[in-house]
Amino acid sequence: MKTTFLTEDFLLESPLAREVYHGHVEGLPVVDYHNHLDVRTLGQAAADIGVLWVASDPYKHRAMRMAGEPERVVTGGASSREKFDAWARTLPKTLGNPLFHWSCLEMKQVFGLDEVPDPASADRIWEACNAALPTGVAVLERFRVKQLSTSDDLLDDVSLHARVPRVRVTPSLRGDSILSLRKPWLERLGAVSDLEAFLEAVRSRLDVFAAAGCRIADHALDDGWTYVPTSFDEAARLYAAGEADARLRSFLLHWLGTEYARRGWVLLLHIGALRSTSSRLRTLSGPAGGYAALGSGCDIRSLCTLLDTLEASGRLPRCILFNLNPSDNAALATLTGSFAAEDGAPKLQFGPAWWYNDHLAGIEANLETLSAYSLLPLSVGMTTDSRSVLSFSRHDYFRRILCNFLASKAVRGQLPADADLLGRVAADIACHNAEHWIDG
Amino acid sequence: MKTTFLTEDFLLESPLAREVYHGHVEGLPVVDYHNHLDVRTLGQAAADIGVLWVASDPYKHRAMRMAGEPERVVTGGASSREKFDAWARTLPKTLGNPLFHWSCLEMKQVFGLDEVPDPASADRIWEACNAALPTGVAVLERFRVKQLSTSDDLLDDVSLHARVPRVRVTPSLRGDSILSLRKPWLERLGAVSDLEAFLEAVRSRLDVFAAAGCRIADHALDDGWTYVPTSFDEAARLYAAGEADARLRSFLLHWLGTEYARRGWVLLLHIGALRSTSSRLRTLSGPAGGYAALGSGCDIRSLCTLLDTLEASGRLPRCILFNLNPSDNAALATLTGSFAAEDGAPKLQFGPAWWYNDHLAGIEANLETLSAYSLLPLSVGMTTDSRSVLSFSRHDYFRRILCNFLASKAVRGQLPADADLLGRVAADIACHNAEHWIDG
Amino acid sequence: MKTTFLTEDFLLESPLAREVYHGHVEGLPVVDYHNHLDVRTLGQAAADIGVLWVASDPYKHRAMRMAGEPERVVTGGASSREKFDAWARTLPKTLGNPLFHWSCLEMKQVFGLDEVPDPASADRIWEACNAALPTGVAVLERFRVKQLSTSDDLLDDVSLHARVPRVRVTPSLRGDSILSLRKPWLERLGAVSDLEAFLEAVRSRLDVFAAAGCRIADHALDDGWTYVPTSFDEAARLYAAGEADARLRSFLLHWLGTEYARRGWVLLLHIGALRSTSSRLRTLSGPAGGYAALGSGCDIRSLCTLLDTLEASGRLPRCILFNLNPSDNAALATLTGSFAAEDGAPKLQFGPAWWYNDHLAGIEANLETLSAYSLLPLSVGMTTDSRSVLSFSRHDYFRRILCNFLASKAVRGQLPADADLLGRVAADIACHNAEHWIDG
Repeated sequence: MKTTFLTEDFLLESPLAREVYHGHVEGLPVVDYHNHLDVRTLGQAAADIGVLWVASDPYKHRAMRMAGEPERVVTGGASSREKFDAWARTLPKTLGNPLFHWSCLEMKQVFGLDEVPDPASADRIWEACNAALPTGVAVLERFRVKQLSTSDDLLDDVSLHARVPRVRVTPSLRGDSILSLRKPWLERLGAVSDLEAFLEAVRSRLDVFAAAGCRIADHALDDGWTYVPTSFDEAARLYAAGEADARLRSFLLHWLGTEYARRGWVLLLHIGALRSTSSRLRTLSGPAGGYAALGSGCDIRSLCTLLDTLEASGRLPRCILFNLNPSDNAALATLTGSFAAEDGAPKLQFGPAWWYNDHLAGIEANLETLSAYSLLPLSVGMTTDSRSVLSFSRHDYFRRILCNFLASKAVRGQLPADADLLGRVAADIACHNAEHWIDG
Repeated sequence: MKTTFLTEDFLLESPLAREVYHGHVEGLPVVDYHNHLDVRTLGQAAADIGVLWVASDPYKHRAMRMAGEPERVVTGGASSREKFDAWARTLPKTLGNPLFHWSCLEMKQVFGLDEVPDPASADRIWEACNAALPTGVAVLERFRVKQLSTSDDLLDDVSLHARVPRVRVTPSLRGDSILSLRKPWLERLGAVSDLEAFLEAVRSRLDVFAAAGCRIADHALDDGWTYVPTSFDEAARLYAAGEADARLRSFLLHWLGTEYARRGWVLLLHIGALRSTSSRLRTLSGPAGGYAALGSGCDIRSLCTLLDTLEASGRLPRCILFNLNPSDNAALATLTGSFAAEDGAPKLQFGPAWWYNDHLAGIEANLETLSAYSLLPLSVGMTTDSRSVLSFSRHDYFRRILCNFLASKAVRGQLPADADLLGRVAADIACHNAEHWIDG
Repeated sequence: MKTTFLTEDFLLESPLAREVYHGHVEGLPVVDYHNHLDVRTLGQAAADIGVLWVASDPYKHRAMRMAGEPERVVTGGASSREKFDAWARTLPKTLGNPLFHWSCLEMKQVFGLDEVPDPASADRIWEACNAALPTGVAVLERFRVKQLSTSDDLLDDVSLHARVPRVRVTPSLRGDSILSLRKPWLERLGAVSDLEAFLEAVRSRLDVFAAAGCRIADHALDDGWTYVPTSFDEAARLYAAGEADARLRSFLLHWLGTEYARRGWVLLLHIGALRSTSSRLRTLSGPAGGYAALGSGCDIRSLCTLLDTLEASGRLPRCILFNLNPSDNAALATLTGSFAAEDGAPKLQFGPAWWYNDHLAGIEANLETLSAYSLLPLSVGMTTDSRSVLSFSRHDYFRRILCNFLASKAVRGQLPADADLLGRVAADIACHNAEHWIDG
């Protein structure tokens, strides 16, 4: 399927948009502060384009299921080529979906192809891509990635990140297992006979992360999440009794918040996923199989209480709110004006168009929300949250939409039609704010 | 009031949009898989245009009330002409509302008029329309309706549908009364001394529906709906005790789901209405009087649990999610990617811009949601859910918006500007997908 | 910072939009039926532009905090000039936020300046504005304000409103303290030993308000609000026991509703704020310090029950629904069709793009919602809800967006391209409907 509509001015709908993008944003380095790359594989090339492009991408798996492909060729035992072919059958049915744009960009920017596979071209594209498979690091360099942070479990080995060549790679902490208190994980952590010992063991791993360059932690506040202020004594009792309920989890999240603040880390709150949908797909394809959905909306009051009690204890870390159900966009963006820092930097950021919202309309809605309810020029922009190096093309996708968004407002007489002014704003959002604010 | 803005290129904003619509979509037959037509009256012409157009349309009643018309001329004892005049007074106040566009289309496409009644023209239009009142079937033919399904109670006579000439008319099941367990209805059903007997009686009526060509059932999941997995024994006890609470209703909905799946029927879930608003209007105008509102949003987790338990029992029917509160659009559209079929067809569809959302902005938002969170090219498109044959003009309204939606994206460089490609996609959504998928 | 993009055709994107605005709307008087002006200061000029423009505006305080300004220069002990300078530092970071547009309009329309302060121009603009500080009444006259209603506590002195020269100023009732039943307030009210005495004392103050020209009352239905139908006896018992819980507050709101209806007042329901966010900011900057947020969404069923029980008692006042969380827009706008009056006037209105939603995209979304789910031509339009006379420039902002909204639809072939027709509709919404309906 030809993708010649994807020119160098893709999504840039006015001369001003093109000037802002090409003149101020296109060549900027990429800072990706949250993703799920596997540092162990970044130095190698994948076995084939099916492995690189299809086998590990839950977004594609989800689309393939909707398009009626059987699980065998989605996440099952089929060969890499069969999965690639299933994806080639699915792609024409994704017209309008972000997967279509992403695929077009990936084929063009990594493999120089002006087409994406469909059943007729699958053979040819399979061969062409396999003949030119780059290493992960090479892809990152092509996308000008300067610095990235992977999301790692507290017990993961974080000594490998610093060894990745030519890109600054640091670990960040995926904190969810700390609240889950699952037996096998606790046994690996060790020395967790009581709450105090547990906290001490966690604290010492936080120090290991800090020494490895970690500046960020993330927590999922899934559908149904609620915050119940809980004392240490109550938490200790629950811990001893093995009751990992909302009270104990609330205590731990609050305690972790103070630890992050003490270390100057940024806390990413991933709000609103509903991960229990099809038990069948969970069994077949594991916990991150692409079948997650959007929950009914965030308990804003609980979130406020968490932030307020952290602030009251003098330990509110800087936070970025990642929001999955877009009906909460306005509420969460507005919240960025409800907590202030004394030290000259904003305390809360409304994050990017996250996960299923990371598409053209979703990004535009996110930018409009940031503009209207927060301060867009201070936004920390985009991060991929992806498992694949190919997804780093989405930074370019975001940048084009951002430049066009600002320029369109100027063209309509709503902002000064000043390419330098808009270019500075766009460059800050696309790169500089994340660089400065997260390390701030 | 003149409506000359309504040309043959109404809503088609680019040459490409016009090419897609006129070249690929305009002449397609209409498949309307859910409406409330009364098959007994389809062969006749109405007594006058007031009866045909105003007397039985709750959308218009609602607007007339907002415009300050007294209930007497809305649903009360006034003459058909008085009601028509009240509507003519109201119409100029609907500028911007879908009722304005629908009325323009209905006057033009059924009566050939380039105007809608206002107080000055009411007399003239009353006469003109009454001079040319078509039968229901004639209107359906004018709109190229090939096949339609009415929504019928389990106890309704479904032997008449097959006798409608020139249009394939089948019954579909409105399942709500099965969950309501109201005494008089149960007495008409008969043989319902215990749960087992009740299920058997229902099952045998389902067979009658199936024999009459039924392929579809619909259920309302109104504001406050919740799903509680309930065993047969528990349900039998509740049934015996006459407690039709959420547990018994949950059991019955689940059981019906398995029955629908067994028969290959499609389940339409009508989500999010709040039907208890004004007790006064309910008393005056009956249960479908146009005063229903939108509820606070769907309990997505309950919906997931229902679908998951059906899937786990091997009996998840294909479903279409009709959503009333648009703040749930993204969540429900995303859910279509959370359940997969092994047999090459999608399991869940996000349905059309339903009821109060069936307007230009609502349809565009629905299409954008389908694009971004599901797979638009596989959408089963539009159905009227209407009580009036005149409403079938809304298929044309939908088709124009759809063609313009796709073409606008192409004109903006976001999709290939290929009229044949876009035309095939639009034709599938406008007609073929519903035809194939629902009978699939 | 230059603002030359702000021409006389600001936001008017077509010749038709310009014709509608300049020909029919621009010169209309302003009716502002809800704001927080202090009538005691309207006759005076402020001490300096910092006092007039920055010191008392919670919107600006919020932005300054997000931009990292310390509380000392936001609401703290800093001088007026320091606060003005902090705002000048913040303003360039508000590009895209409504504060940017509002500031541009205020500088232009009140001070004739084609620029807003930034750090480089702060000195010059400070001097220029201070040299031309108008009185409050002079500003209102410049904005053609004909009539306005301030929001006053039941115990406030409402004898001063009638003395404001050249603008008709009336009090309206802010009813929240009546439901709060705080001790010191009750003591000031006096004679409140039991519920009956309390109601009598309230009733007699309502009469004082009515005598002072009050036609409007407002109540906040904040995040978590719920309505529980409660009998007089139950309420009396709760009152005697000092339990001001949801039941007693429900009783009082219902009772007040009947009192408002009896007097022909309009009830403004302010729905969905979450006022408890940062305890620290509450302590530092008081109860209206700009740190409020959006709650999780309205309990629509409770709202329906309140309206229904008022209607059932024959005492449903006309209501305007002000909505803060835009995800409830569609539901609340639809509700305007669920309650009807017998006397030829609509009962419920969906109000303006309120508070944090009062920006370009928010107003357009509000107008689209009114069009699609209610009847836009009957809308009572815009009110400022502001503490500052400068904010009355927002009526012009609203009018431009309104005219452009209608004209854009006509230009796209969705409405008759008839400037007189659209001008009449726009003029009704911009001014006449509020004037007639609220006094109706």
